[in-house]
Amino acid sequence: MATRITVYEVGPRDGLQNEARVVPIDGKLALVAALVEAGISRIEATSFVSPRWIPALADSADLVARLPPRAGVQYVALVPNGKGLERLLEARGRATPPAAVDAAVFLSASETHNRKNVNKTIDETFHAFDEVIGPALLAGLRVRGYVSTAWGCPYEGRVDPRRVAEIAERLLALGCWQVSLGDTIGVGTPNQTREIVGLLTRRSRPGSIALHMHDTRGTALANVLAGLDAGITTFDASVGGLGGCPYAPGASGNLATEDLVYMLHGMGHETGIDLARLVAAAELAQRLVGRPLPGKTLQAELATRARAAGRVAEEQT
Amino acid sequence: MATRITVYEVGPRDGLQNEARVVPIDGKLALVAALVEAGISRIEATSFVSPRWIPALADSADLVARLPPRAGVQYVALVPNGKGLERLLEARGRATPPAAVDAAVFLSASETHNRKNVNKTIDETFHAFDEVIGPALLAGLRVRGYVSTAWGCPYEGRVDPRRVAEIAERLLALGCWQVSLGDTIGVGTPNQTREIVGLLTRRSRPGSIALHMHDTRGTALANVLAGLDAGITTFDASVGGLGGCPYAPGASGNLATEDLVYMLHGMGHETGIDLARLVAAAELAQRLVGRPLPGKTLQAELATRARAAGRVAEEQT
Repeated sequence: MATRITVYEVGPRDGLQNEARVVPIDGKLALVAALVEAGISRIEATSFVSPRWIPALADSADLVARLPPRAGVQYVALVPNGKGLERLLEARGRATPPAAVDAAVFLSASETHNRKNVNKTIDETFHAFDEVIGPALLAGLRVRGYVSTAWGCPYEGRVDPRRVAEIAERLLALGCWQVSLGDTIGVGTPNQTREIVGLLTRRSRPGSIALHMHDTRGTALANVLAGLDAGITTFDASVGGLGGCPYAPGASGNLATEDLVYMLHGMGHETGIDLARLVAAAELAQRLVGRPLPGKTLQAELATRARAAGRVAEEQT
Repeated sequence: MATRITVYEVGPRDGLQNEARVVPIDGKLALVAALVEAGISRIEATSFVSPRWIPALADSADLVARLPPRAGVQYVALVPNGKGLERLLEARGRATPPAAVDAAVFLSASETHNRKNVNKTIDETFHAFDEVIGPALLAGLRVRGYVSTAWGCPYEGRVDPRRVAEIAERLLALGCWQVSLGDTIGVGTPNQTREIVGLLTRRSRPGSIALHMHDTRGTALANVLAGLDAGITTFDASVGGLGGCPYAPGASGNLATEDLVYMLHGMGHETGIDLARLVAAAELAQRLVGRPLPGKTLQAELATRARAAGRVAEEQT
């Protein structure tokens, strides 16, 4: 029953990219270090999209050059095109010793979202991947693929699971070692997850599919459970739930890494992660962005401590 | 695959009892009416514990006398002892026509929590139920049983599933028509849920066990999914997640009814509930308690509306 599960931390990129406050590079590196300290071994660190589009990640080259190399720790950086890959390789070349960094390509499962996001059709996007995937593999990097809006699109509604499976398989065929399916707007429910995963696990290599669930409607861990039952062993999550406050317009609702790890450990799965240290990393993330993060295990822990402190104060008076 | 699922709304009692602001009786009745309007057919309305202990529910007799009777709608009131039952029966007798009201008895699965909550051992508590269950049944009321801390106790930690099953079966044997198992502090994870439910569904009548999950660590709907897979067809939840803010000490973390219904409908289950109207009831609850409620589907809906309103405002300028 108990399995080794890989937790893919996306907070430093997917999380911070969507926060109102821009965190300085030293803060980002402190967060990465805290995550590594907690036993996280897969970290989505940054993105080489144009700084004009995402000013929060304008420091991507310097960040990659300063990522702490650690045995067993693998970083990933998003790369939208050949120019982005060049910048990633240049930054990696500057580091001595260099950390292990994968490249990642991304697209949406729905045409409208893909066009709004990268201004290309899905076919044009796949064509553009030729500039990235082959050269990255030749340069010694693995490539991860991201499929957004795999459960539903804000413009088109529900996405056909067969379409999602088709796109994921095309990414695998192009050379991605793993494809992460994202429920970008957090609309997924478990039967749908079973359907999507069922189509893929039947014919793909074990470990080639990861799930990236959002908790926008509270269903993230139910979908994770459906994925676990179907044999998925890699899940993406964001420390503290970084990347969109559920009480603010524009909420992204990333699943909090601590909530994921809490449930996995409670089910007897192994992750290699120390939950107390992970909560400490989430507290750091909260300080860096300057707002309470939505992660529930984090807030439960902080509330428990506040109550305990109150009891102590009471006993002292 | 699709099943008829009963959603047991606990907001007016379990929710409001744990809110800082005391809601006036007219506000409570407006909330009950909004829930009934949304298609909720089971509502935990109030409690006949001493008003000295729970001032927020001091209006229980008047509330019961004014509950709107509606075909198919069943209310429940908590009754700690013979005196409480007398008060419930008297209040019900005042109503013309009377609404359908069940009685409910409650205890904890862990000795320490039970003692702190009702100042009795578990055996003494069962003994005290003699004043309630028999007389309630004779008076024509069904009796629901509640088992708190069934997944874990804040004082004793994890609770043995066999102990939980034993207590639930004792309640059924005493005449409770249904027993609701509560994860009072929100520590439950799915394998534990499977174990607890597995022990009970093997030998009890279908429909006799309900689950009352808390979302304190984000695992509520994953536990609901585990329950659904094991044949559970009744789930308790609180409108808007009423009953404890996750960002405040004393957080209870009730699962929000809208989040539960969102997932159930997404899985093709029938509940008889209109989700849009349920969200409207949650908005009313939010106004009544004067703070943002933690329900995620509620907040996602409010954020979507705020974005749409912003777009409209932008287009108009």
